[in-house]
Amino acid sequence: MTIRTVSEDMRINIQTEIDEKTKPLGSLGRLEELAMQIALIQGTLKPQIKRPTLVIMAGDHGIARLGVSPYPQSVTGAMVQNFAMGGAAINVFTKQLGWQLELINCGTLEKNEIDGVYSLNMGPGTANFLEQEAMSATELQKCFHAGEGRVRLHADLDCNTIGFGEMGIGNTSSAALLIHCLSSVPLEVAVGRGAGCNDEQLDLKLKVLTKALERHGRITDPMKALQTYGGFEIACMTGAMLEAGRLGMIALVDGLIGTSAALAAIRIDPRIKPYMIFAHQSQVVGHKELLNELDVKPILHLSMRLGEGTGVALALPILQCAAAMLCEMATFASASVAKKLPS
Amino acid sequence: MTIRTVSEDMRINIQTEIDEKTKPLGSLGRLEELAMQIALIQGTLKPQIKRPTLVIMAGDHGIARLGVSPYPQSVTGAMVQNFAMGGAAINVFTKQLGWQLELINCGTLEKNEIDGVYSLNMGPGTANFLEQEAMSATELQKCFHAGEGRVRLHADLDCNTIGFGEMGIGNTSSAALLIHCLSSVPLEVAVGRGAGCNDEQLDLKLKVLTKALERHGRITDPMKALQTYGGFEIACMTGAMLEAGRLGMIALVDGLIGTSAALAAIRIDPRIKPYMIFAHQSQVVGHKELLNELDVKPILHLSMRLGEGTGVALALPILQCAAAMLCEMATFASASVAKKLPS
Repeated sequence: MTIRTVSEDMRINIQTEIDEKTKPLGSLGRLEELAMQIALIQGTLKPQIKRPTLVIMAGDHGIARLGVSPYPQSVTGAMVQNFAMGGAAINVFTKQLGWQLELINCGTLEKNEIDGVYSLNMGPGTANFLEQEAMSATELQKCFHAGEGRVRLHADLDCNTIGFGEMGIGNTSSAALLIHCLSSVPLEVAVGRGAGCNDEQLDLKLKVLTKALERHGRITDPMKALQTYGGFEIACMTGAMLEAGRLGMIALVDGLIGTSAALAAIRIDPRIKPYMIFAHQSQVVGHKELLNELDVKPILHLSMRLGEGTGVALALPILQCAAAMLCEMATFASASVAKKLPS
Repeated sequence: MTIRTVSEDMRINIQTEIDEKTKPLGSLGRLEELAMQIALIQGTLKPQIKRPTLVIMAGDHGIARLGVSPYPQSVTGAMVQNFAMGGAAINVFTKQLGWQLELINCGTLEKNEIDGVYSLNMGPGTANFLEQEAMSATELQKCFHAGEGRVRLHADLDCNTIGFGEMGIGNTSSAALLIHCLSSVPLEVAVGRGAGCNDEQLDLKLKVLTKALERHGRITDPMKALQTYGGFEIACMTGAMLEAGRLGMIALVDGLIGTSAALAAIRIDPRIKPYMIFAHQSQVVGHKELLNELDVKPILHLSMRLGEGTGVALALPILQCAAAMLCEMATFASASVAKKLPS
């Protein structure tokens, strides 16, 4: 199955529908652009957000052993348990906003088997990419297949809007390398403070990543880049996003790490891009530059840097309002409101 | 009754509570700032958003007869009817997001009596401020009292979060003059295209407003400025915002016109400011400058310029998540998650 190119045939009809609503032309700004995108994805003038589902993928990273994060690796597994218990930010947000939440363990150092968490049985996380490739080609395929399978499951449950979050101590290191390899963003711009590096840790992180690049090179093939520098959770997200596109679903992308997975997906098949909605612009400068290069506009700017899909979660009500605007607003004719005077 | 100064005594306790949640320090960005503000307003570590209510105030403007808006004045009344019928953008958004919606007619040229709309019986709108003051001192008081009364009614219904929207052809002209009089924003920066002026209409608008300033002067007394340049709906909002502060409620402010009412309220009593949450930054350059001068940060940047309280409506889920974060998230201790390594 391939990703259907979003048909532009309906664009004029959708724009006419938006412009007939009782409001000055263009006055709903980003909401109008989102309504257009959703209507094009669904190929209808009456788009709907059905069974919104947020999938969190967690994985550990061999590189974390070198001290590129201020948190110990054990936090990845502990946070997966926290997700399962309902205590994390993303639990609070998804419950408040009406998301379905699924948890996937893509290989963590600790707590690989937790009730309520779908496990890929990938072992304790990726290898240290200073020593070898982060994962084998077989492991990469396993991540892709798992991501695809879970997305199909949700589509079968009548979900048409899926978003992705992640957890993984050290995964901003993977994301920075992927972004540098697959876009024109310089490494030092793509590298941020992650979960809160101090100056010294940031310096170490940049040195470690520069060394990794010296060893493996700036790999521009997206699959090879994922295999060399990726994380299991990032690869799983990339596979899941592509499958969401094949199934004609809205795919919501979170912050820096989510966008690194989206970038890999776009490089694998650019037809996925019109199905993607970018939820939040992270504080990392490289994220803004990458979004600009991809020519996409994030919905929210809330200075968050938590991951877990928190940006995706918070963007949902805006998408729902954009869809409802098309479905429910009166037109100038139906409400007997005078249109703009001829100028 | 006066506005209670928000007590800062709890700030340290609230910050400790936020910092104990299972997330890197500060990683929820604006959500943490909003949680702090709401907790300070309510004086509790467990803040709640109760019966959120959005009040739309509509009024016509004498100045609109001079062609400062691309829409005819009849649109104000027609849109009030559209609100009452449920067909406007704000109806769709408030229904989608769980707001109570109240409509107040503060004097419109047409359709002053519509079922489901609370009418102030203020006649067909303000006077043309090129010829005389927009309203009498008595009319200004009537607007204030009405706004206060409606806010008390909602507080009695156990609402603790109130937001304000407006509708009034020509009211960006009033707003621009109020902003220029009560802040350091130059008139030409405060004047925008409103509901969609072309270059010629924008030029006319600036000329008309400059002439009004020449006649009445740059009035820095907020009550006198409201009386001279205001709209009934703007004055009603100012009175309502001040009452919300007296009652210890969260007061949500919309875009350019809402902020002009908020500015007048702050100039009347600066103690109101900590109760205000600014929902959306409008496309008008002067709005950004005014928000900077007031040292407040809007939650959303969605390039909207519709009014009606649409920005306020869309900000609610983010406030609800900020409050829920404080009430429901696990702490590092309760979830047995390791904290940041000592650096």
